[in-house]
Amino acid sequence: MLDRLAATAAETYRAPSRDCVVPAPGTQILLAPVAALVPPGTAAVLGPTYGEFARAAALAGHHVIKVEDIEQLRGADLGVVANPNNPDGRFLKTHELLDLAHARGDRGLLVIDEAFMDVRPADASLSGEVARHNIVVLRSFGKFFGLAGLRLGFALARPQIAQRLAAALGPWAVSGPAALIGQTALADVAWANATRQRLEREARRLDAVLAGRAGYIVGGTSLFRLLRTPAAGHLFHHLGRAGIFSRSFPEHAAWLRFGLPADEASWERLGAALADFSDWTHREPFAP
Amino acid sequence: MLDRLAATAAETYRAPSRDCVVPAPGTQILLAPVAALVPPGTAAVLGPTYGEFARAAALAGHHVIKVEDIEQLRGADLGVVANPNNPDGRFLKTHELLDLAHARGDRGLLVIDEAFMDVRPADASLSGEVARHNIVVLRSFGKFFGLAGLRLGFALARPQIAQRLAAALGPWAVSGPAALIGQTALADVAWANATRQRLEREARRLDAVLAGRAGYIVGGTSLFRLLRTPAAGHLFHHLGRAGIFSRSFPEHAAWLRFGLPADEASWERLGAALADFSDWTHREPFAP
Repeated sequence: MLDRLAATAAETYRAPSRDCVVPAPGTQILLAPVAALVPPGTAAVLGPTYGEFARAAALAGHHVIKVEDIEQLRGADLGVVANPNNPDGRFLKTHELLDLAHARGDRGLLVIDEAFMDVRPADASLSGEVARHNIVVLRSFGKFFGLAGLRLGFALARPQIAQRLAAALGPWAVSGPAALIGQTALADVAWANATRQRLEREARRLDAVLAGRAGYIVGGTSLFRLLRTPAAGHLFHHLGRAGIFSRSFPEHAAWLRFGLPADEASWERLGAALADFSDWTHREPFAP
Repeated sequence: MLDRLAATAAETYRAPSRDCVVPAPGTQILLAPVAALVPPGTAAVLGPTYGEFARAAALAGHHVIKVEDIEQLRGADLGVVANPNNPDGRFLKTHELLDLAHARGDRGLLVIDEAFMDVRPADASLSGEVARHNIVVLRSFGKFFGLAGLRLGFALARPQIAQRLAAALGPWAVSGPAALIGQTALADVAWANATRQRLEREARRLDAVLAGRAGYIVGGTSLFRLLRTPAAGHLFHHLGRAGIFSRSFPEHAAWLRFGLPADEASWERLGAALADFSDWTHREPFAP
């Protein structure tokens, strides 16, 4: 069952072969063994991003630095970039990452977390290039397919690296339900294409709902949008009282991330709560 | 959901508290992080046993030795024992293991894999003692509950150790289905008691089916029995042709492990295949 899953994942993600695919119970649990592929050294994480990789790298004994420029990933033993990035949607083109991988050569490892790549065209991914460089691409199943609780993800890497990761996880890492559901869903190319288009339409609708307030859309993917507004803190609490959860960021007080509302009633609820908010110009003392 | 699962597991396994419980997607995936709790040194595995722990300990950089006597676990940085043992059912009493843990003191870690402990009375487990020693107890969910494919298991240890293991797994290690099903099943004490009794009856029935052949039962738990016979190799193939899978052991050519047949038809098929076997006295060249 895992073999079929890995073969389907290789095809869907356009990885060079099934031997480049390591199925895992979520990409989260891969972070520690991926960070441990490289002896303790310097881990550079391109920020601002999801915090779990810095934590896993520190656990593996690395000195972790957060950097702002892709060039700063060049000299690190472990270079980490999320593409497209969460929460701001920053997107690096394939050739930029390949230039970086080429410049790094045999040194350490470059990790590309493509957790939100499914919303992009296939040629935006580095999955097809894993056999030619010291890179690990992480692909998440749960986000795009809406089944995060199933726990399924993949590491894609050249076979020598893939074997080491697979050995760290052991032979029965993925649950039977996750293997069967994942294999079926990954093979459904028509659903994926239709969903990509639907998500793009809905993301534009979210832009329209958020537009014209005292803030602006910093970026995002078609699964979420990041709003920057001095009223972020007040708006977070206002929405929360209306039963709407947005994502706030302790280190970025002016940021608020919005997921796509699930159904028409939720769209209306969000629209009403935003229309009802009067504090847009209230500048909080802690907003940068 | 994970909090409720951990609390229920603590109660069912009689662990000192919820803070001693680390839920994981199977105990298999815990082996590498457990082995990495101790800096590379000597790992002593009480054999003969399940091979995955020696593999995980070697991956973590330990020099692995297989020992035959519990006393030899005393000086190792990492001591590993399966209790009850697979495949021979060797069972160490609580006081033997506590004496060992006491003698080892603060040195390294003693790991007790209780994957098959559910078939035993609760006081046979070391789960209740984890807060007082440098020990990690592994509990498997899938074997006793017949849901191995769900991937659920637990490490039990003092809170400081449990926190390190939980950090290595990250925050979303267990799938939603596994958490909900596991929590429900672990809380069903009546089912567990009835199942323990049913398994004991069925194990005695398996003993009777296997008895009187040119072999003897080495041991087992009430989930499996280990037969020793010079005809093991021939019998393995004979049963395989009848569609019955027994477990052979490359390093122990005279061993054959039998699980419990699933239903009445399977019992009859096993009985018929054994009655049909005429090679009991055939001594194979490779049998010790």
